[in-house]
Amino acid sequence: MALYVHKYGGTSVGTAERIKHVAEKVKKARDQGDDIVVVVSAMSGETNRMTALAKEMQSSPSLREMDVLLSTGEQVTISLLCMALEGLGCPARSYTGGQVKILTDSSHSKARILNIDSDKINKELEMGKVVVVAGFQGVDEHGCITTLGRGGSDTTAVALAAALKADECQIYTDVDGVYTTDPRVEPNAKRLSRITFEEMLEMASLGSKILQIRSVEFAGKYNVPLRVLSTFEEGEGTLITYEEAGMESVLISGIAFNRDEAKLTIAGVPDEPGVATQILGPIAGANIEIDMIIQNIAGDDKTDFTFTVHRNDYEKASSILQNTCDELGAREVVGDDKIVKVSLVGVGMRSHAGIANTMFEALGKEGINIRMISTSEIKISVVVDEKYLELAVRTLHDVFELNEEKSD
Amino acid sequence: MALYVHKYGGTSVGTAERIKHVAEKVKKARDQGDDIVVVVSAMSGETNRMTALAKEMQSSPSLREMDVLLSTGEQVTISLLCMALEGLGCPARSYTGGQVKILTDSSHSKARILNIDSDKINKELEMGKVVVVAGFQGVDEHGCITTLGRGGSDTTAVALAAALKADECQIYTDVDGVYTTDPRVEPNAKRLSRITFEEMLEMASLGSKILQIRSVEFAGKYNVPLRVLSTFEEGEGTLITYEEAGMESVLISGIAFNRDEAKLTIAGVPDEPGVATQILGPIAGANIEIDMIIQNIAGDDKTDFTFTVHRNDYEKASSILQNTCDELGAREVVGDDKIVKVSLVGVGMRSHAGIANTMFEALGKEGINIRMISTSEIKISVVVDEKYLELAVRTLHDVFELNEEKSD
Repeated sequence: MALYVHKYGGTSVGTAERIKHVAEKVKKARDQGDDIVVVVSAMSGETNRMTALAKEMQSSPSLREMDVLLSTGEQVTISLLCMALEGLGCPARSYTGGQVKILTDSSHSKARILNIDSDKINKELEMGKVVVVAGFQGVDEHGCITTLGRGGSDTTAVALAAALKADECQIYTDVDGVYTTDPRVEPNAKRLSRITFEEMLEMASLGSKILQIRSVEFAGKYNVPLRVLSTFEEGEGTLITYEEAGMESVLISGIAFNRDEAKLTIAGVPDEPGVATQILGPIAGANIEIDMIIQNIAGDDKTDFTFTVHRNDYEKASSILQNTCDELGAREVVGDDKIVKVSLVGVGMRSHAGIANTMFEALGKEGINIRMISTSEIKISVVVDEKYLELAVRTLHDVFELNEEKSD
Repeated sequence: MALYVHKYGGTSVGTAERIKHVAEKVKKARDQGDDIVVVVSAMSGETNRMTALAKEMQSSPSLREMDVLLSTGEQVTISLLCMALEGLGCPARSYTGGQVKILTDSSHSKARILNIDSDKINKELEMGKVVVVAGFQGVDEHGCITTLGRGGSDTTAVALAAALKADECQIYTDVDGVYTTDPRVEPNAKRLSRITFEEMLEMASLGSKILQIRSVEFAGKYNVPLRVLSTFEEGEGTLITYEEAGMESVLISGIAFNRDEAKLTIAGVPDEPGVATQILGPIAGANIEIDMIIQNIAGDDKTDFTFTVHRNDYEKASSILQNTCDELGAREVVGDDKIVKVSLVGVGMRSHAGIANTMFEALGKEGINIRMISTSEIKISVVVDEKYLELAVRTLHDVFELNEEKSD
C-alpha cells in the first residue's frame, strides 16, 4: 500500500462537473488500495471574481485581508470535493490550511511554509478516509490566514508529500506531461517519461510553465518524486526525480524558449571594480528582473555590459540605463526588443563535450545569428532574433534527435 | 466611551456598494469615540449559490462539509468590510469564528455557542481597531468548522455582546424597528421605541420575523440590551430590554398574526389518560410542528381534541389523524385550512384585568367569530377565519389605542 498526494488545479476543478470527475479519479486511485491525500485550488475564475470585489472596496487592499478573502476559494473546493467523494461512497474529510496547521511565516500573499503537523491527516488516513486539503493557504504563528502566492497549491502538495513521506506527489493539470519542447512550435515534440529536478527547474524557469519553480525546488530538496499528468486524459505523465543510473543515456531532455525578452547594452563603460553594481543597482531598484548578464572586455580599459529583461520592462530599463550612461561617462546605450532566448537543457551535457559546438554549428547552418550566449552546467542558452525562434527550436529538436521516442 | 456590537445581515452587505455604506456607518460610530465590534452575515444570495453547488455534488451532502462550505460566505464579507474600513482610514481587523474561538458543540448546521474567548478582540480594541467578526459560524473542540443555523449571525452578535459586556447590541436590518403590527395590514402601525424581551419573544414567534428567537432568548438570559434599527435610514430603532418602571403604563405592545395556520379536530375521543399522547405522538413523529392545542370535554365520557399546524402540513396531518381516529374509535376528523391566528401581546396585561373581554367584545361587534382561544401571561391568541385577518388586526389596533404615538 502506497501513499499518494494528488493535486488538482483551478481548471481541473473549474465546474461542478469537473469536481465530480476529479472525485471519480480519486475514488479509482483509492480503490486500488492506496492512501490518498488530495490538494485542490480554487475553482478557476473565483480568484479573479474576489479580487475584483476587493478592488471595489479599495484600490490597494491590505494583504492580510486579501489572504482572508482569497483563502475562501480553496475552502469552497475542499468541501465540494468531499461531498462528491461521499456521494460515490468514498469517505472523505476536508481540511483548511489552518486546520492541518500548515504553519507559514507572516508574509501575507507570498508566505513560506515552515512546518506541517501531519498527525491529523495520518489519523484520518488510518480510519480509511481520503483527506482533502486546501492548497495555497496556511496560518502564521498568530493564527492569521496566509497565502503562498501564485502556484501555491503545487507547493502545498509537495510540502504535504514531504511531511507525510508520500511515495509520489502527482500534479494533475491540463497537459499530459513535460515535453521536449512546446508542441505548438515543434509538432514532433515528445512527452518525456522522466526528467530530473534540475532539468525541470531549467525548463520551468525558461518558459515551460507547467509547475511552479518553488514547488520543484521544494520537491528536489526533500526528494519527493513528482509526477505531472493530465486530469482529463489517461496516461503516465512525466516523473520528475533525481538522476538515476539508467537516465544517463539521455543527452538532452528538451528545448525551452522565452519569447518575451529584450536586450540592452551599455557600451564603453570604464572597466573598474563596482561598475556592475552601478549599472544593475538602479534597474533592480525599479523592480525590473534581469535574466542573462554578459560582460565583454572591449580592450581599451573600457567594457561592454549587456543584459536581458522582460520585454514589458524594456522602455523603463532603457531610460534608467541612459541616466547611468551619463553618470558613468559611458559611450552609449543600445538595445533590441525583438529577441528571444532558446535553451538546450540536459544533465547529459555534464559528461559530454561538444554539445555547445553542435548547437552553434546547427544554428549557423540555418543562417541564424547568435546574439548572446550563456551557459550553466546543464543548460546552454542563446539569444537570437525573434523571427528565428521556430526555426531554431525545430533545428535543435532535430539535431539532438528529440523526435525519437524516449526510452524509460 | 461605550462598547457597541453592530450586526449587519445579508441584505445590508448584499453588494459592494452596500458594504461600503456599512463601512461608513461603522466609521461614523467609531468617530464618536466608542469601541465597535461588527458582526456580518454572508452577502445575500451567496448561501443559495453555494447550496446549489453542493446539491450538484450530492443530494444530501454531509452537514460537516456543508458547514465548511457555507462558512466561507461570512469570511468573504469580513475581509471586504475591513478593506472598505481601511479605505476610509479606519483601522480594522477581520476574524473568523474559529480565529476568535467561538466554541460550539459539534451539531453541524445548528450548533450552539458554548464559549467565546474575548482576549483577542479586547486587545485589538485597545489598539484602536474596529474588529469585524464572521457571524453564523464557530468551531468545535476538535477544530471543525460549525454553523449556528438560520439567523445565526444575530446569535453571534448577542453572544459577543454578552462576552465583551457591551453596552448595546445593535441589529441593523431592512426595517427601522419593531412595530405595533405589520404596517402592510394596518397603515397606522407605529414603531415602538421600547419593548421587553418577553414581548419580543411572543411577537417574533407569532410571525413578526425581525430577529431570530434564539438571539432574543440569549440577549434576555445575559441581559444584553438589544436594539433593532435600519441599515438604510437614520433612526433610533427599537430597544429591547427588561421591563422598567416607566414601561408599565404600556398595556399592549403590539398585535402579531400568523397567516399560514390550519386547524384539525378529532371529535368524540374516549376521555382517558394518555389519549393526548396517542393523538399527538404520530404527528410529532412525522416532524410536524404543533402550535395551539385545545381540549374540550364533550360531556359524555368523550372529548374533542383540537390543534393547529402549519398550512403546508395540513394534508399530511389530516391523514395521520384519520388513522388515529380509526384506532381510537373516535367519531370523526374535521379540519379547516382557511384560518389565521391573531395575538395581543403586552406585559401590561399581567396587572390589568379585562383585556381578554375587551378583545372578544371588539371582535364580536365586527361579526368576527372566534374559533379557538389560547392565552399565556402576556399574550392572548385567537383563531379566526382567514378572511377576517385584516379586519381583526385593525379593530384591535384601534381598540387598544396603538395608533397613538407611544411615549418612551
